[in-house]
Amino acid sequence: MKIREKFPILRNNPGLIYLDNGATTLKPISVIQAETSYLENISANPHAIDYKTGFAATEIITETRVKTAKLINAKNTNEVIFTSGTTHSINQIAFGLKNFIHEKDEILVTTMEHSANLLPWIIVANEKKAQIVKIPLNKDTGININKLVEVITPQTKIFSFVHASNTIGFENDVKKIVQKVRTINPNIIIVVDCAQTIAHTNVDVESWDVDFIAFSAHKMYGPFGLGVLWGKIALLNELLPIFYGGGMSKEISEDLINYKLASIPAKFEAGTPNISAIAAFLAALNFLEEIKIEKIRKHEHELKDYLRNKIKANKLDLKIDFYNLENHAPILNFNAKNVNPQDITHFLDFKYKIASRSGAHCARRTEEVYGEKTSVRISFGVYNTKEEIDVLIEALNNIDKFLDVIF
Amino acid sequence: MKIREKFPILRNNPGLIYLDNGATTLKPISVIQAETSYLENISANPHAIDYKTGFAATEIITETRVKTAKLINAKNTNEVIFTSGTTHSINQIAFGLKNFIHEKDEILVTTMEHSANLLPWIIVANEKKAQIVKIPLNKDTGININKLVEVITPQTKIFSFVHASNTIGFENDVKKIVQKVRTINPNIIIVVDCAQTIAHTNVDVESWDVDFIAFSAHKMYGPFGLGVLWGKIALLNELLPIFYGGGMSKEISEDLINYKLASIPAKFEAGTPNISAIAAFLAALNFLEEIKIEKIRKHEHELKDYLRNKIKANKLDLKIDFYNLENHAPILNFNAKNVNPQDITHFLDFKYKIASRSGAHCARRTEEVYGEKTSVRISFGVYNTKEEIDVLIEALNNIDKFLDVIF
Repeated sequence: MKIREKFPILRNNPGLIYLDNGATTLKPISVIQAETSYLENISANPHAIDYKTGFAATEIITETRVKTAKLINAKNTNEVIFTSGTTHSINQIAFGLKNFIHEKDEILVTTMEHSANLLPWIIVANEKKAQIVKIPLNKDTGININKLVEVITPQTKIFSFVHASNTIGFENDVKKIVQKVRTINPNIIIVVDCAQTIAHTNVDVESWDVDFIAFSAHKMYGPFGLGVLWGKIALLNELLPIFYGGGMSKEISEDLINYKLASIPAKFEAGTPNISAIAAFLAALNFLEEIKIEKIRKHEHELKDYLRNKIKANKLDLKIDFYNLENHAPILNFNAKNVNPQDITHFLDFKYKIASRSGAHCARRTEEVYGEKTSVRISFGVYNTKEEIDVLIEALNNIDKFLDVIF
Repeated sequence: MKIREKFPILRNNPGLIYLDNGATTLKPISVIQAETSYLENISANPHAIDYKTGFAATEIITETRVKTAKLINAKNTNEVIFTSGTTHSINQIAFGLKNFIHEKDEILVTTMEHSANLLPWIIVANEKKAQIVKIPLNKDTGININKLVEVITPQTKIFSFVHASNTIGFENDVKKIVQKVRTINPNIIIVVDCAQTIAHTNVDVESWDVDFIAFSAHKMYGPFGLGVLWGKIALLNELLPIFYGGGMSKEISEDLINYKLASIPAKFEAGTPNISAIAAFLAALNFLEEIKIEKIRKHEHELKDYLRNKIKANKLDLKIDFYNLENHAPILNFNAKNVNPQDITHFLDFKYKIASRSGAHCARRTEEVYGEKTSVRISFGVYNTKEEIDVLIEALNNIDKFLDVIF
């Protein structure tokens, strides 16, 4: 079966050119069927181990946890925590580290972070009278390893950065960055937001030697409403939960003051898990395992190269500012001179059935990199083709006619 | 179509007697198809309003919010917040009220609360040096309205209680309780956990005059991974979010100290919503609207009456302690003398394909009501029948043979 045939939505929407994979990926039939099958055949609450379907539910969670650990090369399966998404994961990390953060501590971030990796740190820092320090970036590049020594101090407590941003797209070399950070200050807790890379390139927590990572299932051909938080076991044991409830309490004493919590991973998974999504995520992990991330990466790099060459051949850079054309990222951000980004995305949608994005892309400090608050973004997935890029090029050639769709 | 035919899992598991509806309900075909249809035809991130499928996604959220507000008789649609479940909702309320709670304040709960409505309050109270005060309960009954005056003081800041507990099942008369509470101390913030009642009886926030309620979609024939938090608009405007991220930040200033958040409901919905579950939840709301809650309530009361009469006719109360046989609740908890509850649930499963539950049911202080830490629980849903109860009665008659399944 060809890759595009595995995606029912492409069959049901002939002509759709889906270039918003940074927001969410489409779902292959195996993922959709896994969710349906769970609901039609098992449908139990996995906390219910008193009967067969409930027991089957817990087995699915175990299997999915093992497979997730394998994907990110985590040695200990219990270090994989299921959350509702990257946002939940990073909030759990930031607020869970509350007791580690003290007055005048510094939390290091970059200007290209998504709001989900900025706001939680800002809130914690404000509460603890700690300080957020930001690494300024240049257009089209990532974290400059040689400049880390200028921003890391003995007060730096946490460094949270994106593997590849949802705007710039440049893939940071996490392993080299971590090695450098550990040389300057070995006590820093390092958090990596992998939301934009987990389905596009290799993520290897063991070789990276980071402390926490976060990502979402729905950006990796999996279901909505499910995310992963991975952390080193020693830190997870110290991390405070942000949700309290069923499945994670072992004892609540009569005085309603004292209580005992379960060990990881249950400690961070209060309440009924999103079990049908976990079943679907297992199918997504199998989908990625079959195709192999390396092949997806190669395919998307080829698409970017093809797009870059076409843009240059058509001299589109004369009327459009491209912000990250030169890097390999499966993302391209741009602004047509004097045109509101939203007018462009509507033009692309109405005239060419191209799904793209306009706005600040929830990365509000990227304006410090681009000099513009908003832009148009296109982002690739495994099913995108050169033929689709040809249509995009045609659309960009006709971009002056964007007003045609309005009047 | 008959009600049982709407549930694929009942067709796929002939003979399954599903009596664990307190843990989760089974899903009708319309709910499963709504989720599949979303993933096969739309599949967009609802934050993506730049193209047709993204716009369709936001319309589904709006429609589901309107219909949820209608179900609980909320006047303002924006007061309906989508969360990942009841646990998320109650944690959001408890930690979001942090600034309202001060040293020596009292937070009132009952001994029949689920961990999700105990632990968050314990954590907040410990942090704020406030005190948890509990209302003791008698077997088989709910909150005694006449005794409220003995536990409410001028220091009582919050009263959080369950509409009907997942163990005792007795349906508290929320309207009368609230009227009484408001007479004794009009400043108390009243929170009601409706997880166990939303699919079984009427929930009416307007007539109740409560401040917050919480419930989960998966216990009302809807999808996993989705919950609702409803609150009065004035309190929601003051409530602090517990998740920060995309879709709820309006501005992050260059200093990384100041920020502006979006208004409700976006303020509490950081990150990509569980959009396929929201689409499925809309189908669940339509399912309930068609059948009507009153009819479900009547059906479940009849089942309980039937069960009670059979138990008495078979003199089962001579060898089994029933804790809540007399009330109308669609829940029955019991312990066979000298038998571990888990041995009973395994016996019911292996010999009779009855799905039931053993344990503390995440309501760890219920032992103060029953005098037992654990019990067996059966709980009804719309598809249960008198024929299924006949099988349960046969099983209970043979309960002495529970060891047969082990040896």
